Amino acid sequence: MALLFCSTSDNASQWVEELARRLPDLEVRVWPEMGDPADIRMALVWKPPAGLLAGLPNLGLILSLGAGVESLLEDPTLPELPLVRMVSDGLTADMAGYVTLQVLRWHRQLDAYRDQQAAGQWRPLGHRPAPEVGVGILGLGELGQACARTLRSMDYRVMGWSRTPKSVEGVDGFSGADGLTAMLGRSDLLVCLLPLTLETRGILNRRLFAALPKGAVVINAGRGGHLVEEDLAAAVESGHLGGASLDVFVEEPLPAGHPFWRNPRIHVTPHVAAVTHPSRCADHVAAAIRALRTGQPLPSLVDRSRGY
Amino acid sequence: MALLFCSTSDNASQWVEELARRLPDLEVRVWPEMGDPADIRMALVWKPPAGLLAGLPNLGLILSLGAGVESLLEDPTLPELPLVRMVSDGLTADMAGYVTLQVLRWHRQLDAYRDQQAAGQWRPLGHRPAPEVGVGILGLGELGQACARTLRSMDYRVMGWSRTPKSVEGVDGFSGADGLTAMLGRSDLLVCLLPLTLETRGILNRRLFAALPKGAVVINAGRGGHLVEEDLAAAVESGHLGGASLDVFVEEPLPAGHPFWRNPRIHVTPHVAAVTHPSRCADHVAAAIRALRTGQPLPSLVDRSRGY
Repeated sequence: MALLFCSTSDNASQWVEELARRLPDLEVRVWPEMGDPADIRMALVWKPPAGLLAGLPNLGLILSLGAGVESLLEDPTLPELPLVRMVSDGLTADMAGYVTLQVLRWHRQLDAYRDQQAAGQWRPLGHRPAPEVGVGILGLGELGQACARTLRSMDYRVMGWSRTPKSVEGVDGFSGADGLTAMLGRSDLLVCLLPLTLETRGILNRRLFAALPKGAVVINAGRGGHLVEEDLAAAVESGHLGGASLDVFVEEPLPAGHPFWRNPRIHVTPHVAAVTHPSRCADHVAAAIRALRTGQPLPSLVDRSRGY
Repeated sequence: MALLFCSTSDNASQWVEELARRLPDLEVRVWPEMGDPADIRMALVWKPPAGLLAGLPNLGLILSLGAGVESLLEDPTLPELPLVRMVSDGLTADMAGYVTLQVLRWHRQLDAYRDQQAAGQWRPLGHRPAPEVGVGILGLGELGQACARTLRSMDYRVMGWSRTPKSVEGVDGFSGADGLTAMLGRSDLLVCLLPLTLETRGILNRRLFAALPKGAVVINAGRGGHLVEEDLAAAVESGHLGGASLDVFVEEPLPAGHPFWRNPRIHVTPHVAAVTHPSRCADHVAAAIRALRTGQPLPSLVDRSRGY
């Protein structure tokens, strides 16, 4: 009963160590050194090669190293097995940090002050009080709720939009198409933390941008597939949007020569908003494995019909 | 019974408007158009000219437009009258925003990513999980506690040092000289939010920096007088400190040619961490005036022996 670890962007030896600490009897094999495929009962993966999982005859559980599982679900060879996505305090705190940093960066004009410093200029630029700044969050799952709480603690006017209505203390909740339009009209900053599904692909597009107030800023920490990149470039170019902070892209790494690299109103980070630190995420994986072994309900089980 | 408003850095007409909304019967005069000095019973001030307040024979209350009152107390002509400092949700939220922005900026390497973008580089730099990052806050008053709460919501290891022991949920409290040394040794980021007093002047000096871990970052949003600027420059130059974010300076505006302007490890902002927005701070002033009129205890009364 072995677990196969397969990721080219996570630290395998740290994962082996953290899992050994929690489940000393668990045998972990690190792809591509897999041994007999028939031994593998569980797989902990991030973007595994297509077909890898389908070739494991005794696989009983797939564990995602990321919170989003759209790349697994898009693989037509993915076996029909329980799929658990990553949810952890570490991932959540990381994301709250990234989103809060980007909201503050724009609201408090950090880049303008950095430029003024380079020019030797002392010039207070003023900023609106936080309660007059609307932050709309698309997606009110674990990540969205954590961001909302942190932003509320600094008095921002926080709104959240979710597929089904959700109630979060201090947050104005919206849902449905009408709710989306209503929230957009009040969002000086719009944060995307949605799962990537058939319904949300391309949601950050020209029509959505047009519903935002002039000068609004878009922060995308969901998936590159949420954003229609040409539409964003055009909306920033026209001056309707004030700018954007993007951590995810249609193609990653963002290709050399992509116009985002050289746009001073578009801030690019290399998919670092929320990092799966093994020390903080191994508890979740160990809990899922224990649940499988003891026949308990699996935590953070993906509903394939929803896509998350 | 008139109030004299005197500040060259606050918006007088907004203040007049916000006070009129709350206290329609209050006569507000805006310095230098003062009329008969004998009419003035209250003064709402920021850095008034030396001697101005002493020349008001019927003055009964001094209201500071800032949270720190050291510049008033340093004026030897300041009358012996009740002095109320500024405390407001607006100021507090602003400060929590500034401090959180600077903590995240350093922890999440925002400037390094901005530089990488300019160079067209896609390179995740990694960052420690927040619970492994110690943030020490000097000063656990309203402002320090608000910063602590926001940083806790993102899982930072938050510590606080105060003159007298204070208990804040989720925050490791320290006090006294031994407590200071203990906290410094664990502070990857050190935030100064102290009042400026005889005891705290120059507290951010060579000896204090030596007690911080190598690579630590100093964030000063207290007063310029807390910092020995040459000591900071030397500690950054030597590589012992990783850098600093400074919002306040010994001389403001920071003089042209000051070495901080051109130090890429020292981020300068022009005293904008916490702004006294009239719409958010007038409630506090109105409450103090009502308390004076009705003989109730004055809120946020300064203890001159402590200096805050």
